[in-house]
Amino acid sequence: MKTRDSVKVAIIGASGYSGEELVRLLLSHPNTELTAITSRQYAGQTLAQVFPKFAHHPRAKGLRFSEPNSEVLAKHAQVVFLALPHGVAAEFAMPLLQHGALVIDLSADFRLKSAETYKEFYAHDHPAPELLGKSVYGLPEIHRSEIKGASLIASPGCYPTSVLVPAIPLVRDRLVKPESIIANSLSGVSGAGRKAELDYLFVECNESVRPYGIPKHRHLSEIEQELSLAAGHTVQIQFSPHLIPVNRGIISTLYLAPEKHFSTAAEMADLNERIAASYRKAYGNEPFVRILEGKPLPDTKNVNGTNVVEIAWRLDARTGRLIVMSALDNLVKGASGQAVQSMNVLCGFPETAGLI
Amino acid sequence: MKTRDSVKVAIIGASGYSGEELVRLLLSHPNTELTAITSRQYAGQTLAQVFPKFAHHPRAKGLRFSEPNSEVLAKHAQVVFLALPHGVAAEFAMPLLQHGALVIDLSADFRLKSAETYKEFYAHDHPAPELLGKSVYGLPEIHRSEIKGASLIASPGCYPTSVLVPAIPLVRDRLVKPESIIANSLSGVSGAGRKAELDYLFVECNESVRPYGIPKHRHLSEIEQELSLAAGHTVQIQFSPHLIPVNRGIISTLYLAPEKHFSTAAEMADLNERIAASYRKAYGNEPFVRILEGKPLPDTKNVNGTNVVEIAWRLDARTGRLIVMSALDNLVKGASGQAVQSMNVLCGFPETAGLI
Amino acid sequence: MKTRDSVKVAIIGASGYSGEELVRLLLSHPNTELTAITSRQYAGQTLAQVFPKFAHHPRAKGLRFSEPNSEVLAKHAQVVFLALPHGVAAEFAMPLLQHGALVIDLSADFRLKSAETYKEFYAHDHPAPELLGKSVYGLPEIHRSEIKGASLIASPGCYPTSVLVPAIPLVRDRLVKPESIIANSLSGVSGAGRKAELDYLFVECNESVRPYGIPKHRHLSEIEQELSLAAGHTVQIQFSPHLIPVNRGIISTLYLAPEKHFSTAAEMADLNERIAASYRKAYGNEPFVRILEGKPLPDTKNVNGTNVVEIAWRLDARTGRLIVMSALDNLVKGASGQAVQSMNVLCGFPETAGLI
Amino acid sequence: MKTRDSVKVAIIGASGYSGEELVRLLLSHPNTELTAITSRQYAGQTLAQVFPKFAHHPRAKGLRFSEPNSEVLAKHAQVVFLALPHGVAAEFAMPLLQHGALVIDLSADFRLKSAETYKEFYAHDHPAPELLGKSVYGLPEIHRSEIKGASLIASPGCYPTSVLVPAIPLVRDRLVKPESIIANSLSGVSGAGRKAELDYLFVECNESVRPYGIPKHRHLSEIEQELSLAAGHTVQIQFSPHLIPVNRGIISTLYLAPEKHFSTAAEMADLNERIAASYRKAYGNEPFVRILEGKPLPDTKNVNGTNVVEIAWRLDARTGRLIVMSALDNLVKGASGQAVQSMNVLCGFPETAGLI
Repeated sequence: MKTRDSVKVAIIGASGYSGEELVRLLLSHPNTELTAITSRQYAGQTLAQVFPKFAHHPRAKGLRFSEPNSEVLAKHAQVVFLALPHGVAAEFAMPLLQHGALVIDLSADFRLKSAETYKEFYAHDHPAPELLGKSVYGLPEIHRSEIKGASLIASPGCYPTSVLVPAIPLVRDRLVKPESIIANSLSGVSGAGRKAELDYLFVECNESVRPYGIPKHRHLSEIEQELSLAAGHTVQIQFSPHLIPVNRGIISTLYLAPEKHFSTAAEMADLNERIAASYRKAYGNEPFVRILEGKPLPDTKNVNGTNVVEIAWRLDARTGRLIVMSALDNLVKGASGQAVQSMNVLCGFPETAGLI
Repeated sequence: MKTRDSVKVAIIGASGYSGEELVRLLLSHPNTELTAITSRQYAGQTLAQVFPKFAHHPRAKGLRFSEPNSEVLAKHAQVVFLALPHGVAAEFAMPLLQHGALVIDLSADFRLKSAETYKEFYAHDHPAPELLGKSVYGLPEIHRSEIKGASLIASPGCYPTSVLVPAIPLVRDRLVKPESIIANSLSGVSGAGRKAELDYLFVECNESVRPYGIPKHRHLSEIEQELSLAAGHTVQIQFSPHLIPVNRGIISTLYLAPEKHFSTAAEMADLNERIAASYRKAYGNEPFVRILEGKPLPDTKNVNGTNVVEIAWRLDARTGRLIVMSALDNLVKGASGQAVQSMNVLCGFPETAGLI
Repeated sequence: MKTRDSVKVAIIGASGYSGEELVRLLLSHPNTELTAITSRQYAGQTLAQVFPKFAHHPRAKGLRFSEPNSEVLAKHAQVVFLALPHGVAAEFAMPLLQHGALVIDLSADFRLKSAETYKEFYAHDHPAPELLGKSVYGLPEIHRSEIKGASLIASPGCYPTSVLVPAIPLVRDRLVKPESIIANSLSGVSGAGRKAELDYLFVECNESVRPYGIPKHRHLSEIEQELSLAAGHTVQIQFSPHLIPVNRGIISTLYLAPEKHFSTAAEMADLNERIAASYRKAYGNEPFVRILEGKPLPDTKNVNGTNVVEIAWRLDARTGRLIVMSALDNLVKGASGQAVQSMNVLCGFPETAGLI
Repeated sequence: MKTRDSVKVAIIGASGYSGEELVRLLLSHPNTELTAITSRQYAGQTLAQVFPKFAHHPRAKGLRFSEPNSEVLAKHAQVVFLALPHGVAAEFAMPLLQHGALVIDLSADFRLKSAETYKEFYAHDHPAPELLGKSVYGLPEIHRSEIKGASLIASPGCYPTSVLVPAIPLVRDRLVKPESIIANSLSGVSGAGRKAELDYLFVECNESVRPYGIPKHRHLSEIEQELSLAAGHTVQIQFSPHLIPVNRGIISTLYLAPEKHFSTAAEMADLNERIAASYRKAYGNEPFVRILEGKPLPDTKNVNGTNVVEIAWRLDARTGRLIVMSALDNLVKGASGQAVQSMNVLCGFPETAGLI
């Protein structure tokens, strides 16, 4: 897409948590005009009625939820965000693309390159396998150049972002054995979406912590796809999600075996420097990756509401393992902020526009 | 100690979270009479003044905090619980034992057999190394017979209990490689004690999740000691604690490499059955260990307020790993309930007395 | 009912929050045998499957949810608890009573004496108006003698208990003007029941505080009925509930105009003493009412998990008002504990049996 | 102050919750350059070290906490914000003013016009009574014109803002009896400041709700001062704060007696319209006051992170009372946002600059 000053944007499925966060970001974005928001449930109501918190925003005036209609939306928006459940998003992508819109999909529908893997992990056939080759995995820190020319961006999931950003440089630089990776992840409840289910009631989540989806959570498929790309061969890893009682935030703690054994202090210092160098090379100029050196460790409260991923690591001389920890806001860098970042790349806006 | 109907008990350091929980349990225990509670800070005040929630308990009448005095306490109590910070507990143990009291220490002071390991992990010399050989590690599921004849019981920490109970049977039965163990643990904030520190303020913990103490938390020392005992050789493992915004509860997620590789469905079923058998043998008759078979996974809300450890496991055919998860209440099975359980064993009371 | 050692009890609707709390209390009660629990949703499943936290209770073995059948239940239980939504409970009461069971209803169905008031507040005709004259409002501190001979007990709501216990003595003793009462109440989310509704999702409640049901919440009707009884004439008051992000607990802050104006220090001291005397007379021997004198104010964390109501008051010399504050656990004294307390009274058990 | 494009600003006491929020707002403000932040505790450390969450802000580079020095600060900043405990702020105001700085004080030090009232409520003599006549109470919705020419602004407290914004129009327009006002307020824990005290530990606040400071909280003094100004005579009201387990947010529920009795539907409709008109007149053009008409009631989650006050009201035909509810973020409209709003007025910037 050629660079311009401003684009018209629309959100299909603007009443879930990711959709709501997109509304927040796009209302304040200096280069976007939010022209349409859709929701089957709230069609006809104004944004202020459904989300009173946006009522005072000067750019919110007149925004009203409509029924989703690809043809109409494509006329009024150059970029359309899909913030829909997986399986539903695919239905909208094809007609939107045909009508010339650029599509940024926050669901899992176009993240996997293989329709077979999709079926293995999502338990049904992919609804639009012909688009899988067309989509770009929208992790700007890894796929920035491909995003620039894309028409269909599959924005990564929250868990995958929290694992891939810290892991890919180390895998790419052959510092760790990819198949050794164990990712233990903790997520806030908004990650489950705005769904009226008993499991996500306040009383069921407050004062509760629990693993789930072990050992084969759906997000594992896209994590492995991207790690395999970085490794140059097929990689299978361990991934264990847990639900914790916060609204937002993910902590992923990764356990990795370094390629090279270290035992002396000198070997440890050397490996430590190589890890630091790997991160500096990968992210030294990235506006949204914060490598913590020194004592601090990641904390979700330092990233919530921002598009930043925090990363820290520790080598353990006793066990020979490397531990890498990351923190991000599952609704921003893990969903809507990342989608906006991809839009910035795609449209030639400053990459931090609307995000800092 | 010979069996009797009832014992007089005292608590030194009854105003912290473990002490408060001990008060709760001992007030309702059918075989104990709580004769003394001490606290330097609250000496002179009644239990009802310091903890209004106990005011209505009929056995709470007249209980008043006093300054700790080992000689006096040993006169009025056969069993004395120490719920003090590590380092402080050791000062009281010696005189109490000399005066004939049985001592159950909830601190870390007598958990390690090696004064050298103590110094390595606690950064100062052990204050009473001559007692280390005398103390028994008070995990009844593992050391019940030794507890029976002990005079000094070192009650295990909350994290160690959550790791050792699920890990020891598998290590003992040679089903897993001990040195492969990675324990990723999540703890509620009461685990940090009732300390006026900025890090544990509501606003600093709520909507925050964070790793800490990585890679060498103090509790690692007792975990490794007990795993080494079970393995028959020295074992070093990975242990990573995280702070999560709940009052109570620990989830430990363990990653283990099975001794025997499995790849076919039959091998996996066989290993699965051997794990189940190992747990059944170890805990089939244990009143406080709940092995979850079928779909459910551990959840802190199912154990909070109880002395139960929940355990579940999954084999991952893709990675060849075993994942074991446990849940417990850090103030009950992780501290005060476990201490009461040890007292029950020690005094010949029904092991579940006052705990169900 | 004539005194006996033990009764068989059943719970209809044992899978909601009140039902679950009843299970907890009745499993540990020394004078009850829990013979049946019903739930349409979970019929056929064991208690341990639906609520893993009860699995270790020795008296839980073999308890399985069944479909509710009044005739069968009345055969196997002398006392039947109804923990059902309002409107549904009434359907079960009649046949249970006909089959000779004693019924303790935790819903609002039999709390009002007037079918007309019921219709005004619940917006439909009462399903069994002929039973309204038979039921006893099960607030033991106020209606103990009537409870003793009752066959149908309407156990009070959580908000009403938090308002009536502190207000009735002052109204009865003519210390305050009843119509001046303003009750500002705060409730934990379990008060809304275990219902899969968006409003009660974790993310919608956490970091949220909100008034609702203003100015005419349904519970107002029973509050006014009981205050009118105490005053000897019809009373209308102000009642404003708010939802706060805790699992359990109610704080009610009452604003009242004293009957007698006070302005001098002596008048204030005199009124203060008369209030203290009123509470001592009413509750001096009550096992579950804790009058806080001195500095402490009520705090939900001091009553959660217990059947206690905490009460404190302050006179304001500047405004001439009396402020009374109460705290209780909405699931215990506000629901299931209170129902068990009524059962104890009804069956001639010690009133605190199973509750301390 | 004459209008200009940009001002240099400094924050004294930038490490508390209000100070941290000021940093957030001023870093993103289009018309300010944050030149200095002070903190005795953190002097010498960078902003990124103390608050990692700001590390990625492009305008944060090089900001380092310094010791507070009025002379130096006044040289490098035209506007200085004081985010200090009450009593401490006054020490800095005088020298800053003498050196020509404009001072916006977030503490209570200059809010009261009467040194006598200050002493009554704060229990010590005012440290700089000569400045009380000079300061302007920085509630822009009420005192905008005075703020324009001020050199010392006393930014209102969080509770007062939540009471005054909804109450003043009704008092000014003689729609309610001022002395009838009862304000029942609920506040998140950040209102207590970043202080290492047991009462504000996570475990003491989570799952706890409690009244405090009843009946004479310090904030009452400024509430009454401003209501008296609006009424034209001295007014005393009731104010009851409560602590609730959220990080941010205040709900105030006000009970008021209308000046004119209403009983018929027509009278009620008339009064309702007069209230609506009063609010429209007062706030129809205010960018940060949101009057909710229709069904919605205030909810802290709709204002958190914003400078907005939400207001709704209900007339109760049964009791003849008016209930007004408000919601705001205690750290934004209740502290730092309001201070920035005052700065915008003072400096001639758009009033919403940096706040929407």
